Amino acid sequence: MRPSGRTNGQIRPINITRNFTSHAEGSILVEFGETKVICTASVEVGVPRFMKGQGQGWITAEYGMLPRSTHTRNNREAARGKQGGRTMEIQRLIARSLRAAVDLKALGENTITVDCDVIQADGGTRTASITGACVALVDALTHMRSKGLIKTNPLKHLISAISVGVYKGEAIADLEYVEDSEAETDMNVVMTETGKLIEVQGTAEGEPFSFEEMAEMLELAKHAIREITDIQKAALA
Amino acid sequence: MRPSGRTNGQIRPINITRNFTSHAEGSILVEFGETKVICTASVEVGVPRFMKGQGQGWITAEYGMLPRSTHTRNNREAARGKQGGRTMEIQRLIARSLRAAVDLKALGENTITVDCDVIQADGGTRTASITGACVALVDALTHMRSKGLIKTNPLKHLISAISVGVYKGEAIADLEYVEDSEAETDMNVVMTETGKLIEVQGTAEGEPFSFEEMAEMLELAKHAIREITDIQKAALA
Amino acid sequence: MRPSGRTNGQIRPINITRNFTSHAEGSILVEFGETKVICTASVEVGVPRFMKGQGQGWITAEYGMLPRSTHTRNNREAARGKQGGRTMEIQRLIARSLRAAVDLKALGENTITVDCDVIQADGGTRTASITGACVALVDALTHMRSKGLIKTNPLKHLISAISVGVYKGEAIADLEYVEDSEAETDMNVVMTETGKLIEVQGTAEGEPFSFEEMAEMLELAKHAIREITDIQKAALA
Amino acid sequence: MRPSGRTNGQIRPINITRNFTSHAEGSILVEFGETKVICTASVEVGVPRFMKGQGQGWITAEYGMLPRSTHTRNNREAARGKQGGRTMEIQRLIARSLRAAVDLKALGENTITVDCDVIQADGGTRTASITGACVALVDALTHMRSKGLIKTNPLKHLISAISVGVYKGEAIADLEYVEDSEAETDMNVVMTETGKLIEVQGTAEGEPFSFEEMAEMLELAKHAIREITDIQKAALA
Amino acid sequence: MRPSGRTNGQIRPINITRNFTSHAEGSILVEFGETKVICTASVEVGVPRFMKGQGQGWITAEYGMLPRSTHTRNNREAARGKQGGRTMEIQRLIARSLRAAVDLKALGENTITVDCDVIQADGGTRTASITGACVALVDALTHMRSKGLIKTNPLKHLISAISVGVYKGEAIADLEYVEDSEAETDMNVVMTETGKLIEVQGTAEGEPFSFEEMAEMLELAKHAIREITDIQKAALA
Amino acid sequence: MRPSGRTNGQIRPINITRNFTSHAEGSILVEFGETKVICTASVEVGVPRFMKGQGQGWITAEYGMLPRSTHTRNNREAARGKQGGRTMEIQRLIARSLRAAVDLKALGENTITVDCDVIQADGGTRTASITGACVALVDALTHMRSKGLIKTNPLKHLISAISVGVYKGEAIADLEYVEDSEAETDMNVVMTETGKLIEVQGTAEGEPFSFEEMAEMLELAKHAIREITDIQKAALA
Repeated sequence: MRPSGRTNGQIRPINITRNFTSHAEGSILVEFGETKVICTASVEVGVPRFMKGQGQGWITAEYGMLPRSTHTRNNREAARGKQGGRTMEIQRLIARSLRAAVDLKALGENTITVDCDVIQADGGTRTASITGACVALVDALTHMRSKGLIKTNPLKHLISAISVGVYKGEAIADLEYVEDSEAETDMNVVMTETGKLIEVQGTAEGEPFSFEEMAEMLELAKHAIREITDIQKAALA
Repeated sequence: MRPSGRTNGQIRPINITRNFTSHAEGSILVEFGETKVICTASVEVGVPRFMKGQGQGWITAEYGMLPRSTHTRNNREAARGKQGGRTMEIQRLIARSLRAAVDLKALGENTITVDCDVIQADGGTRTASITGACVALVDALTHMRSKGLIKTNPLKHLISAISVGVYKGEAIADLEYVEDSEAETDMNVVMTETGKLIEVQGTAEGEPFSFEEMAEMLELAKHAIREITDIQKAALA
Repeated sequence: MRPSGRTNGQIRPINITRNFTSHAEGSILVEFGETKVICTASVEVGVPRFMKGQGQGWITAEYGMLPRSTHTRNNREAARGKQGGRTMEIQRLIARSLRAAVDLKALGENTITVDCDVIQADGGTRTASITGACVALVDALTHMRSKGLIKTNPLKHLISAISVGVYKGEAIADLEYVEDSEAETDMNVVMTETGKLIEVQGTAEGEPFSFEEMAEMLELAKHAIREITDIQKAALA
Repeated sequence: MRPSGRTNGQIRPINITRNFTSHAEGSILVEFGETKVICTASVEVGVPRFMKGQGQGWITAEYGMLPRSTHTRNNREAARGKQGGRTMEIQRLIARSLRAAVDLKALGENTITVDCDVIQADGGTRTASITGACVALVDALTHMRSKGLIKTNPLKHLISAISVGVYKGEAIADLEYVEDSEAETDMNVVMTETGKLIEVQGTAEGEPFSFEEMAEMLELAKHAIREITDIQKAALA
Repeated sequence: MRPSGRTNGQIRPINITRNFTSHAEGSILVEFGETKVICTASVEVGVPRFMKGQGQGWITAEYGMLPRSTHTRNNREAARGKQGGRTMEIQRLIARSLRAAVDLKALGENTITVDCDVIQADGGTRTASITGACVALVDALTHMRSKGLIKTNPLKHLISAISVGVYKGEAIADLEYVEDSEAETDMNVVMTETGKLIEVQGTAEGEPFSFEEMAEMLELAKHAIREITDIQKAALA
Repeated sequence: MRPSGRTNGQIRPINITRNFTSHAEGSILVEFGETKVICTASVEVGVPRFMKGQGQGWITAEYGMLPRSTHTRNNREAARGKQGGRTMEIQRLIARSLRAAVDLKALGENTITVDCDVIQADGGTRTASITGACVALVDALTHMRSKGLIKTNPLKHLISAISVGVYKGEAIADLEYVEDSEAETDMNVVMTETGKLIEVQGTAEGEPFSFEEMAEMLELAKHAIREITDIQKAALA
């Protein structure tokens, strides 16, 4: 049924390349099939003003797409003079997800900024971003320990993300662009490596969806996250 | 357990005042307890450029908070020169939800803009906004029929929204501010009057949440939506 | 002669509702006929940078209109990314007027920000704003004294405002929208409760006006201000 | 009493240099004492979109100060990314005043944009701007007639402007900076050559002012405008 | 003398990878040593408004750096709300250079937008961008011919670019970051494959430079451009 | 051959008027033929944040054109809300050039901001700006010494600038607008009074240029700079 011939729960091949660029404390190229995102984690001593004096750290994220990462060219947000609503929504999601992976107290008064820049888009850029960003974050934390910036590992658990949806009446996992653009429902799920939920964002694109469809999608997500967690662990090994 | 003495599934008193202001085709004051939002629906003949020539209509939404609708004053977005990420996220949610309530073909090449302006905030401003916006939308559609702009009623079903969450380890419905600021999980659910899902946005604020907690929250949402739908219907009667 | 049947000097019914919303130190709904404005006064300890170390306080104001407070919907200034010239002009006028009501020395190094948000417009929004803002300011000063932020009452005198104009060749007071849009001259007058002038802004919309017309308009303004002052005092009693 | 030794009603030497720069259809350097403003009028065929099809023209104005036209350098508005409230207020005043001088029907569907750029400021920049802008406008209208863009002269009357105020308890005319910064009241008056009023903007800077002081200031303005009108006529002769 | 051990005229290894991403009509990864830039060329039918009806095409360029392409993280321009002066300067340089390579008449009323996004920076990002952009442009032109958008090849000549400078008193070619940050003079040279000049931009960073140094730098540039042209040709073969 | 009848190397009459306006520490009107620019130098104690604590000063520059300094009116950058790429490029060039004229250590922790505002444009506005700005800078440095802000003269050498180009196949100096708009090559050269180069920016507008043409243009620039330096010295005498 799926254009790619994948089974409903089957995810695309996922590749995680560490140290993709040289300057960042964590630098990952993450590929979910044809979707490719560069995730870098940058460490800075100190925290933003609204966090000062609380004895804990901060993690923030920014998301962007190269103008021609998509089928037709999008205007460059820097040239338009502002980030669009979709960009804002995604980078807020990435940042919240990453903060849920880390004990901010143990991070000390340090800030990690994760940049997720999509160089090629084929559906699932936000879930690929979160999955890659987590690995970049782990590398940055390792760097911080080696530099003595932190004493213990603030990571509470790996996190990763997957898109699920209802397509031609059936629940499927890891939608690529041709599926995503025709799906009746689209849902992004962020989970911990231990199988708990961090974010669930489901949207009826066409018809409303039922509680049963919701449950099926969550079930597919749970299985996908297990696989993705293993891929993250293998990359980090 | 709840500061207000409410039971876990109990929602706050909800009031819907129609024709709250005089110029808009639909104008509602919606109150979820101490949360108060003015929702107006404005009808315009024609559609935005990207929709032209498709023979269907468009529904969009904008959201704002009066600077002192909150405990401490927020900077006015018009003065800062841009809408923040939270605002963008909420108005995109409202607009998607409203579009799911309407047959855009039957709307013809007309645009309805719904403005949700919070005059007093005590938690749940986005769910109150969606609930009130739907009633304003219905009034605007009635106005359009009376003016001969549309022949049939494009409304597919009423929609409404409720916030649910995990607070002190238990699932509760319709969080007010003091609960919201300490909740472990916060979830907004938009549903049709027929009990189907349009949007689910759940976020772990502190600890990740389990599939069981997710199910409990959805169950509370389902019951609350039934009550809210009845209140909408009574207001429209 | 007037569409409403009012006499030339007759003002519309004015209502002032205190404690209209719950969070602000002063919160007023002011109604000049069908014109309705929410005025909130917010107290903050400290002053803006350019005022620091001078041992005196600061009062500032912001003005906005809900997009559908008017006959046809106006674009939201926050979405357009800047406040228009009319908004700037009005909020500067409100702020200057309020500062003229208060002994800034006696205010100490505190800032009061007054927000005037028009929820329904029918002419005279800026004069209604100033009239309501002054009552909100008085409530905020009372709050400050009760909290011990100030020792004495910094209020020098109540202030209020009225629009006057030349309409069909005659001077009239308190123009509503249908009059305002056809008036030859439009003038806003801000005065103290003791009958002195704070601001006079007169504009020939069509033909230039004579010194005699100017004098007639000022005379109407003087009488109107006396009435409005009494309404403010009654509201504060 | 006045720092310059001028009598209360005495204005500064006013110079109007026509054809100050070469490209504009009207180009004036206007000097009110040490205040120097370049006023250019630019003619364009056609009108802005909101004016189209009404068979009449449009006049608009923009105002700016060179960053070091003042005692201390002001930030360049182009670099800050927006025009401040004071600039907006002044350019709206200039444009309204100029439109009151012209029969827009007779102007046809043409637009005149007047730019007033202050190169040296010593008080009264807005009144000097209006006075010079009117002469630039007349030159532009003459140019339009010579090019056949208009058949008749759309000028209804010359307009000019003067600042008056209350300084050390007395009404004075044409305040220079040292007076302006200490004046109790500041008022700008725009009048026609026939002695009628177009704009009156009076502000109590310190204490409120009385109806008597208002009358005295208007009287000084009337005399000053007569002198300024003569200077405009001499320049245009 | 050079940190890398290169001779004064020796350029870094240059790699050009075609079809680096899948959506653009031309997509290149260009590497000058550790400097890595993605250059995409996007074809659009039609031209910007100011070019309409002239029967010729347009080529424009945009430049960006991923926030962590550099040693320390730069703020994202999209988040800051504007492109900086350096970005503007570089993208104007790239666009002018590319337009000099193409017969715009032969391009017809089509637009090519070239995006140069730096993913890793180690000096010479603008010269690498121009070199890679030219190859992306050639691929886009080939695509256009295959689609029948153009009949003849509008390319007049390949162009490429190299940075030269004065470092420790000697002229060197292709400066990497550690050289660039200490160079006395920095010059970017854009040339045709036939050895003619398109752009020369030389800047004294410390001391002024002599006509002799200028001549030496140009000589190094000429030789480097020959090598780079060969690499472009090999990539395109 | 030249429209003005000038010989190829002949520059236009150059006038430098000192103390053109009264408030700035240095204020120059510079005229290159019909091109007229006001250059003011403003002194401020202290340096921008990124320079603090380094024991040296800073020089920055801003450039603007009055809207009607050109043949047709340009939109005001302050009204558009941003400075264009050309403006950014020019003001960066002016600032770099001026910094190359001064020993920043000897300047102490002081900032000089030079504003170059074009009131009439006829080609060569950036070279006239640099030439005038240097004289304004010298006056500001003299002012600083007289006020005791600096002990020694931080000026290393006068700088000035000239535009050269290839027009109808021949190298010419100091292009006016009609030449500039048809030139095949346009080059701006900034030099010291001692004949060394600070900036060279050459651009092929039409056809690429040869090394021989480059040499000819530089030779013309060298001679022009000698003349301009003499004019600067005469003005400063």
